[in-house]
Amino acid sequence: MKNKPDKKIRVKRIPKRGHYDKETIYNILDAGYICHVGFIHEAYPLVIPTGYGREENTLYLHGSSKSRMMLDLQKGIDICVTVTHLDGLVLARSGFHHSMNYRSVVVFGKATMVEDKEEKIRGLKIISDQILAGRWEEVRGPNEKELKATTLLKISIDQASAKIREGGPGDEEADYALDVWAGVVPLQLVAQKPIDDPVLREGISLAESVKKLYDKKSTS
Amino acid sequence: MKNKPDKKIRVKRIPKRGHYDKETIYNILDAGYICHVGFIHEAYPLVIPTGYGREENTLYLHGSSKSRMMLDLQKGIDICVTVTHLDGLVLARSGFHHSMNYRSVVVFGKATMVEDKEEKIRGLKIISDQILAGRWEEVRGPNEKELKATTLLKISIDQASAKIREGGPGDEEADYALDVWAGVVPLQLVAQKPIDDPVLREGISLAESVKKLYDKKSTS
Repeated sequence: MKNKPDKKIRVKRIPKRGHYDKETIYNILDAGYICHVGFIHEAYPLVIPTGYGREENTLYLHGSSKSRMMLDLQKGIDICVTVTHLDGLVLARSGFHHSMNYRSVVVFGKATMVEDKEEKIRGLKIISDQILAGRWEEVRGPNEKELKATTLLKISIDQASAKIREGGPGDEEADYALDVWAGVVPLQLVAQKPIDDPVLREGISLAESVKKLYDKKSTS
Repeated sequence: MKNKPDKKIRVKRIPKRGHYDKETIYNILDAGYICHVGFIHEAYPLVIPTGYGREENTLYLHGSSKSRMMLDLQKGIDICVTVTHLDGLVLARSGFHHSMNYRSVVVFGKATMVEDKEEKIRGLKIISDQILAGRWEEVRGPNEKELKATTLLKISIDQASAKIREGGPGDEEADYALDVWAGVVPLQLVAQKPIDDPVLREGISLAESVKKLYDKKSTS
């Protein structure tokens, strides 16, 4: 943990919400399904949502080899990857003090293309695990054609910061006298009942990976 | 609806997922709580999550007058605002064909600062309504000091496109013979039980705006 984070990653607005330790950053990254990737394309900023994965201090992104984003990013341009979890609506007694509870991470870096076949398969598995642990082992792995059609990029998580807002509203002293309900509406991304592929063959039961996702859900 | 969208907003990768009509774009924007704002700060891209609101063809952003993002954006630099709803995990029979169901909108533009007091209060109400309809009328409105401490920006939704992926997995012909469960795990952002502010005065019952949020939830 750095005592004084670099200017680029330092949380400027409400510094007490800033976190720079790897554990906090990794936990937020590991809890997400999608990130928003920002990069400069033809001199203007572009923000694209996409899946990702993390292992140790590396963030992985993948996409079609033909995708504009993959073609841009593999040139080693500056990237900003942001992952955000919206945790709740913070309802105060005044409009001004309304807020949201959230956990977010911003990673700055440049991407490197993974060309080594074994490393590439490993990186794709990490992205698959991020979406659904255990799924990779249940399905057919990538063949040569599919590997060629996929670009895998890696970004070091060296320049990163987290920002967290949690807890209830903070109101102006005088407003506590108002007859206004105040509190938090927690929000959670919840897995709903799985839907079989309409052409699923008879006799195939729900995947173990999916069952575990729901078991996890019911105990959390 | 444009027959041929401008190059900047055209969905390049999997064009059939691209939508350019205002109704589709507005519906996706109206269903969200946060957007990810991309802009160029000191020559590098920055992506920041924040609340927003929409009315007619205008998108509103607000923030502290001291915030770096607000100070940057009010200069009229290029902005990319992306709103994404993650609707499900698409689990195919091969790793390669795994996907996610989502609805996203990308808006390109430049922000203008709203300085007129009445227009500013109106814009702040639109952002409040986006978070929770009816809340604005329940709480204390902004005073002069709070208005001064808040920057409101507006962006025209002229250059925008939506991208939608829905439905089940699409697999390779040969993979349908595999003994692998395939389908969709729908995901939904669900409001959990509201939490009273720990210092809420006795006898104040849950706000009507919050009750309606849960009524809406239970019927959808």
